[in-house]
Amino acid sequence: MKNTQSSYSSTCPSKSRSTTLPNSIKYCAQCGTLVEEKIPSGETLLRAVCPSCQTIHYENPKIVAGCIPEWEDKILLCRRAIEPRIGLWTFPAGFMELGESTEEAAARETLEEAHADIIIHTLFGIFSLPHVSQVYVVYRAQLQNLNFKPGPESLEVELVSLTDIPWEHLAFPVIHESLARYVKDIQAATSQSHSAVVPTKQHPSFYSS
Amino acid sequence: MKNTQSSYSSTCPSKSRSTTLPNSIKYCAQCGTLVEEKIPSGETLLRAVCPSCQTIHYENPKIVAGCIPEWEDKILLCRRAIEPRIGLWTFPAGFMELGESTEEAAARETLEEAHADIIIHTLFGIFSLPHVSQVYVVYRAQLQNLNFKPGPESLEVELVSLTDIPWEHLAFPVIHESLARYVKDIQAATSQSHSAVVPTKQHPSFYSS
Repeated sequence: MKNTQSSYSSTCPSKSRSTTLPNSIKYCAQCGTLVEEKIPSGETLLRAVCPSCQTIHYENPKIVAGCIPEWEDKILLCRRAIEPRIGLWTFPAGFMELGESTEEAAARETLEEAHADIIIHTLFGIFSLPHVSQVYVVYRAQLQNLNFKPGPESLEVELVSLTDIPWEHLAFPVIHESLARYVKDIQAATSQSHSAVVPTKQHPSFYSS
Repeated sequence: MKNTQSSYSSTCPSKSRSTTLPNSIKYCAQCGTLVEEKIPSGETLLRAVCPSCQTIHYENPKIVAGCIPEWEDKILLCRRAIEPRIGLWTFPAGFMELGESTEEAAARETLEEAHADIIIHTLFGIFSLPHVSQVYVVYRAQLQNLNFKPGPESLEVELVSLTDIPWEHLAFPVIHESLARYVKDIQAATSQSHSAVVPTKQHPSFYSS
């Protein structure tokens, strides 16, 4: 679904951990009082704390769940119809909602973005993006039929051969990293679950974030 | 670190997705105005939306990162000194912070709870707990030395043989599920990355949540 949570902001939460909070919380969500920044008793990090009702407002990384849908020797990619990175390519993925499993979230996003029915089969990898406090959970999935078509967030949805992946027109570094590892696995006829931090030092220069 | 985000609450976000929001957001964190529950344009789920500054307050599942620290044929377990489930056993795990990778979060929690130095080696599994909107990311790790001792959140920290795991005194169903799969993998001399939803239908009756 459309979800305007920003995907690649320029803020860097990691740099602010010890000295100041990301200023996303100014007022208490429970009682509306202006919060204070303090280190609660027994903790070591600054938190937004309500001086009135004492609620501690924790902020945590968000999960983006997605999958690489496979059909014979091709994979399904979507060209983004929304910002950020409108017009660039990705596999189906989006922010996980409350009450879902990661598998359900990946399947829902695939249905929404590509009207594509899939069956999740293996965990492909988990990719941490500490600079934006996101964690991608990516599955390999089996496309069930060819009745896919663009959802409201996609301009195009296409089955792409691994030799035709639009490497210079991928939406995000994590998509590039995931697909590069995927192609390598397929070429080596291996199946593994990856765990990595993105961006890596080897990142292509055409990404601005 | 001590972090009072509740771990196993009795609320069930999944049941409230279509009709009402979990009532954790009453006031806008940006401007302090009382929020309204509405489905924003282009979306399908109810969100807390500020009628004054229009901020949409998304709520997302939280990541708990942890590891199973290995030393020869034993693993390191901690007995919890804090609620929930005080006095029961777990492997080191806790809520991921902004600006971290999942690996860093798992290593930090292990240091905090058990003063234990580890090196992460493989992704053991990802376990979704949709009833509490949490996702556990669990690694296998190599304990680097025997200088472990209880941190402030632990009553005891012990190296335990797989035949001595206190199955009926584990803190959470996800710990039970993870360790059951771990023991099975070790017995079969396999290494794989799991992905599952917890609790499963086979869950032991001695857990209340």
